[in-house]
Amino acid sequence: MFTCCLLINFLSVPAQNADSLLIRAMADDILLHGKAYANLKTLTKQIGNRLTGSPQTYMAEAWAQKALREAGAGQVRLQACLVPHWVRGGKDEAWVLQGGKKSQPLEILALGNTVGTGPKGIQAPVLLINSFEELELRKNEIKGKIVFYNYRFNDRFIKTFEAYRDAVPYRSEGPTRAAKYGAVAVLVRSMSHAADNHPHTGGTRYVDSVPKIPAAALGLQDADRLAALAANEKLTLYMRTNGRMLRDTVAHNVIGELTGNEFPEQIITVGGHLDSWDVGEGAHDDGSGCVQAIEVLRVFKAIGYTPRRTIRVVLFANEENGLRGGLKYAEEARAKKEQHIFALESDAGGFTPRGFGFTVSAEQMNTVRSWLPLLMPFGICEMNVGGGGADIGPLNRELGTALAGLQPDSQRYFDIHHARSDVFEAVNKRELELGAVAMAALIYLVDKYGL
Amino acid sequence: MFTCCLLINFLSVPAQNADSLLIRAMADDILLHGKAYANLKTLTKQIGNRLTGSPQTYMAEAWAQKALREAGAGQVRLQACLVPHWVRGGKDEAWVLQGGKKSQPLEILALGNTVGTGPKGIQAPVLLINSFEELELRKNEIKGKIVFYNYRFNDRFIKTFEAYRDAVPYRSEGPTRAAKYGAVAVLVRSMSHAADNHPHTGGTRYVDSVPKIPAAALGLQDADRLAALAANEKLTLYMRTNGRMLRDTVAHNVIGELTGNEFPEQIITVGGHLDSWDVGEGAHDDGSGCVQAIEVLRVFKAIGYTPRRTIRVVLFANEENGLRGGLKYAEEARAKKEQHIFALESDAGGFTPRGFGFTVSAEQMNTVRSWLPLLMPFGICEMNVGGGGADIGPLNRELGTALAGLQPDSQRYFDIHHARSDVFEAVNKRELELGAVAMAALIYLVDKYGL
Repeated sequence: MFTCCLLINFLSVPAQNADSLLIRAMADDILLHGKAYANLKTLTKQIGNRLTGSPQTYMAEAWAQKALREAGAGQVRLQACLVPHWVRGGKDEAWVLQGGKKSQPLEILALGNTVGTGPKGIQAPVLLINSFEELELRKNEIKGKIVFYNYRFNDRFIKTFEAYRDAVPYRSEGPTRAAKYGAVAVLVRSMSHAADNHPHTGGTRYVDSVPKIPAAALGLQDADRLAALAANEKLTLYMRTNGRMLRDTVAHNVIGELTGNEFPEQIITVGGHLDSWDVGEGAHDDGSGCVQAIEVLRVFKAIGYTPRRTIRVVLFANEENGLRGGLKYAEEARAKKEQHIFALESDAGGFTPRGFGFTVSAEQMNTVRSWLPLLMPFGICEMNVGGGGADIGPLNRELGTALAGLQPDSQRYFDIHHARSDVFEAVNKRELELGAVAMAALIYLVDKYGL
Repeated sequence: MFTCCLLINFLSVPAQNADSLLIRAMADDILLHGKAYANLKTLTKQIGNRLTGSPQTYMAEAWAQKALREAGAGQVRLQACLVPHWVRGGKDEAWVLQGGKKSQPLEILALGNTVGTGPKGIQAPVLLINSFEELELRKNEIKGKIVFYNYRFNDRFIKTFEAYRDAVPYRSEGPTRAAKYGAVAVLVRSMSHAADNHPHTGGTRYVDSVPKIPAAALGLQDADRLAALAANEKLTLYMRTNGRMLRDTVAHNVIGELTGNEFPEQIITVGGHLDSWDVGEGAHDDGSGCVQAIEVLRVFKAIGYTPRRTIRVVLFANEENGLRGGLKYAEEARAKKEQHIFALESDAGGFTPRGFGFTVSAEQMNTVRSWLPLLMPFGICEMNVGGGGADIGPLNRELGTALAGLQPDSQRYFDIHHARSDVFEAVNKRELELGAVAMAALIYLVDKYGL
């Protein structure tokens, strides 16, 4: 709560003035001549969504190499990794049945990595379950049922990622917990507070000891409707999903570098993930993070700033349903005994930045907070403890690398997250660019002063 | 720049705890059971835009009285004032002429309060002018021309209201300055950085000593197109606008009150303006401010908070093209010798709040900054010097009332400001509600502790 007020000035006033001017120059270049928005348009409109293993994955990899070269990366390379290859396999559907006949359609979207129902679908009574506590109390009623988790996204959280963390176990663990008691399928209320009815997908986790059952997310309006029906009468549902896990395939992290001119062995990573779910265009999640990371490199070159340390832009593969890109990157870093001093990820949407969250030592936290006055003119007012990103997490766990995550305003993120509404038009040019400004400023400061 | 870091704690810890709990209770009620979003939907979708003097003005006044009563206002009344009555009078049009014939249409929208061209329109050579400096240098070329001001909205400003203040003289003074040198009409580049081509209207000011000439705003894409054409060749334009100023009519401030139970004579005003331009739905400008002000009153009643001072919600008439509502309110306050201790306006859009701007004494500034820790959990991180609102400005000038304005994130405001894209769908429910939370918290603190 008081994070934004702890200002410990380590830097001398002349140093701050020079930094302030350099950051202002980067901001001007990004706001007046930036490529982030145009890059995002190409990625989302010419390529589209980018589920791991889909043809678009490889189009996006090719585009990313080109975009990094155009931004001025000295070296651009691909880092191969084995990735899971899940396919949706067709349109998901569900119906409320009356007298054995389809009466009301429900808007559903199978969860990522799930098995399908088979071509005939599943027909079964539905059991409304509001919480895992209720699941345990009613475990004897579950056998043969379609369990419908109607756990609500809690609007009381001011930062919506807290509501997501609160609700997401119903998506990730819910199917397995219901299957353990004999459920035949699961529907999950979408993790969102949108006003529309678009279902929001996302990964689920099976465990080998429990049967794998089909599972899908339900749009919010339909979830309310189904909950009202299920509270009043015995309901039977029909659902059909078609998901299949194919054999692992190969995808690539796309890496572009500016080599440091004083400490080239010290690596600073900045990135986002190139993959997305297979609905919408993966614009906020995480096209935005990718184009912002590229923009950091571009603006360094554009204003003629030569980094002291090596700046490495990494567009990670397979964040959404496997994290294999992030794991591979850390694995190779360890194998090569690379020195990774800092990694920054943008994977919380291309909205107006409010601050950063850090996974660093207390001493490092003091250092980054001392930089806050340099960032405040650009709308940054929070330097929070805790944060990073899914793709850079392994770097911290494997090598102890200091991490940060960009924290944009979170109010609109879960309106569009993993849904067909995550499209280019939902991204505001200036908001996207201000995120890139904040990232460039932080990377510049870490490069200049170390951490 | 350092405003968010000056924390002077006047309040004891137990007092802060009680305040913190009460503000949390208000936030919960607004986020879970609020009426702001539903009220905005009614105002924008059932009534629509509300240009002063239009039939919708009076529908909105009737709606506002009802909404205030439903929110729990003890007294609801109308305060009449004479208002200007400008009408657009028809569809505005402009064309690039080639060989005397209409060749390319331009998207224009007459500025508020302007005279029309007459039914035959105006046909004249166009003179591209990039700044007032250029206007002065080329004053001998202006006679008989349509002056096209192509002054650009400056993307370098981080807070977009600064770009607006920088550019808006071209709209408000530009027509008169060009008319002084014999221009027959004016086109103004829209004050916006939107990616679309919607023109953005807004008021202009004529002076009696200079001929009143027609003036219209031009969409950004068309402004770029016209500037490119006008730089390369001599161009003739045709434009027709139909604006007329009718006789003054009567409109009303709508006022709802909760009477204070200790110092009823001390009045705290919270408001927005009910009128809007005649395009779009006046959703952000300023339907949002209206429903947020009503929400402050509603939540006080809903959680059972009885104010010590009198809380007065005022939905002002005629902010956009006359300010007569705000002037009337201050005039009556002075005539009745009312004691107005504080006024808060929300008129910068229904976006995520970042803070408040204050027009107060240095001592009062210290007091409001001491409240920042109570507001930070709700995303407020700035308590800035300078701010208020157009409608409450006269209260400060006439009675010395302390003022504040809600300062939401400003990145998207000028995408939609005074354009047909300012519609309900452009407002996010949670962003709107968080603005109401911040306003309710500030009004509560002023009510409890005085200022």
